[in-house]
Amino acid sequence: MPRTELETVYLAYLDALNDRRFADLDRFVHDELTYNDEALTRRSYADMIAADVRAVPDLRFEPRLLLTDGDTVACRLWFDCTPTGRFFGAEPTGRRVAFAEHVFYRFRAGRIAQVWSLIDREAATAAGPRPNSARHTRS
Amino acid sequence: MPRTELETVYLAYLDALNDRRFADLDRFVHDELTYNDEALTRRSYADMIAADVRAVPDLRFEPRLLLTDGDTVACRLWFDCTPTGRFFGAEPTGRRVAFAEHVFYRFRAGRIAQVWSLIDREAATAAGPRPNSARHTRS
Repeated sequence: MPRTELETVYLAYLDALNDRRFADLDRFVHDELTYNDEALTRRSYADMIAADVRAVPDLRFEPRLLLTDGDTVACRLWFDCTPTGRFFGAEPTGRRVAFAEHVFYRFRAGRIAQVWSLIDREAATAAGPRPNSARHTRS
Repeated sequence: MPRTELETVYLAYLDALNDRRFADLDRFVHDELTYNDEALTRRSYADMIAADVRAVPDLRFEPRLLLTDGDTVACRLWFDCTPTGRFFGAEPTGRRVAFAEHVFYRFRAGRIAQVWSLIDREAATAAGPRPNSARHTRS
């Protein structure tokens, strides 16, 4: 299936994050956005991601499932990384963690205006990879 | 935008869950599936949902964002309910909770074969609704 224009834009956004080109975020993100329905400036949004990258220098945003429909993007992101700083409230263990983020974006005029994100925090703070890296989120 | 065939099927699946017609799940779910990459039978999958419904009698699956692409569905589900039994490991408080699930499905031959789900467990076990029901998943 051919890539949609919005998929192309979104993948360029992930490239910017993976290349740590945070100054480029104005191309992809509005000055004001909402993140899980809370108002946020692009600066705060970029600062949040920059803080994650400081705690996890090898953080890479890897899209595993990617859908677009109109101005909406849905993505299952996969992370496989080794935190070296405090991450999601947990001290680093020196071991690798693998975890998913499931995130929806609403674009307006070609840039991100709304983000709804859920992250598998339990896996992100677990002490190293499991034989089966997939996890139930249920108790 | 017109509803896709897969959207229609998925919404009928949610209707079956909301109507507690678990015996109808064979129309929507394969005998064997994966849930967060773990193998599961449809029976176990239905039992998991039935257990949630026993703990939360007013559990309703409400799609807030719904995308389809080929054989893949992405949905942001919203729940606004009052657990009366143990839910995600937490004892019921008698108060209402509101929380999201972000879930991807891969269909095969018209039925669900793979599910990847993240649930905002923190919000699902919080003691009642907040002024702003949206939540950061980040620490």
